[in-house]
Amino acid sequence: MRTSYHEELNSVLDHLVHMADLVEIAIREASEALLTADLGRAEAVITNDAQLDQMHEELEYQCLSLLALQAPVAGELRTIVSAIRVVFELARMGDLAAHIAKIARLRYPAHAVPERFEPNFREMAEIAEKVIDVARLSLLERDAQGARTLATIDAKMDGLRRDHFTEIFREGSDIDVEGAVDVALLGRYFERFSDHAVAVGRRVIYIITGEVPEGVDWPNA
Amino acid sequence: MRTSYHEELNSVLDHLVHMADLVEIAIREASEALLTADLGRAEAVITNDAQLDQMHEELEYQCLSLLALQAPVAGELRTIVSAIRVVFELARMGDLAAHIAKIARLRYPAHAVPERFEPNFREMAEIAEKVIDVARLSLLERDAQGARTLATIDAKMDGLRRDHFTEIFREGSDIDVEGAVDVALLGRYFERFSDHAVAVGRRVIYIITGEVPEGVDWPNA
Repeated sequence: MRTSYHEELNSVLDHLVHMADLVEIAIREASEALLTADLGRAEAVITNDAQLDQMHEELEYQCLSLLALQAPVAGELRTIVSAIRVVFELARMGDLAAHIAKIARLRYPAHAVPERFEPNFREMAEIAEKVIDVARLSLLERDAQGARTLATIDAKMDGLRRDHFTEIFREGSDIDVEGAVDVALLGRYFERFSDHAVAVGRRVIYIITGEVPEGVDWPNA
Repeated sequence: MRTSYHEELNSVLDHLVHMADLVEIAIREASEALLTADLGRAEAVITNDAQLDQMHEELEYQCLSLLALQAPVAGELRTIVSAIRVVFELARMGDLAAHIAKIARLRYPAHAVPERFEPNFREMAEIAEKVIDVARLSLLERDAQGARTLATIDAKMDGLRRDHFTEIFREGSDIDVEGAVDVALLGRYFERFSDHAVAVGRRVIYIITGEVPEGVDWPNA
């Protein structure tokens, strides 16, 4: 019985890693759809998001069943409760990738991102892929040290978003209203995506060490 | 021991109701600060948000302690696990109220909301106050029926947000870039606020009935 319980606990963590894989694909494809105005890619991200929502429901149910049937304590309790939160964060990250894809679809065949913002969004896309990759690896390898690097990477995302506003509101800027609104919302989605990765990292640190790490604020941007 | 356990479980729910009270004040004050360009009000909302974040940490810890020490089953397990989620949703709602207040502060002494959008945002503010009030009452009175009305109210919020885009992108619209960006982001914050209230309602329904209600989608906008 205990063995099968531990197997199930490990299976939850494996499923989280798999879910993180899918989120990584989603944000990469959404970014590519956005930056190349690729309608097919955008549609695929939007369609595939249902799978992440389904995994959210199933994994949460699995965690609740484990809580109910096994009455875990200490580290195991911490793992299961944290897994519930991680699965939620990952599902939200999938939603945000789908939001990005939806803006790409809305503007197709035009590019949603005004040309001069492309390098900035290319960087945002790279950071988004980086944070989910680091979060996934920290889950896979139970690596608190890796998870701790997420806040630093996330700070770069916040910087890129500040650059948007500087450019949009710059005197003499000739950005049109549609472009400005798209940049503002897309920037928000990438920024939130990164925030959720930081939150995953915090949970991984909590699972491994049992302590809420000092100096890492909850993302509230 | 059992009595004190039940007392503690009730105290968690009471704290959630109290937290919902504070969120209701936060969104009312943030909306008022926004619509009247009231800097003092905006500052107060931003400052008070720390209290909600503090409650988030404390209540989550209290729930985890209950799980660890009492190994609850069935309805009690459901309540505690749901409470963890509700406390998270309420804290996010507080963050969103603070985001709204921050835009009011950023534009002060000017009004962030362009004049022609004021009636729309007045309605959004009313709906935001309504959804947190309904969510709070459903928690207070353990009222699944009340919680079920939230999705319908939330649909109005989504409609108001769609109206933004129609107006912003209307041919001949003379809205400036700054106004358009503020409207787009503020609209997003109000819309998400309402989504989180729907999520609270879903958890209340789950606590009371044990079933995830059909026909009420998880908010993913």
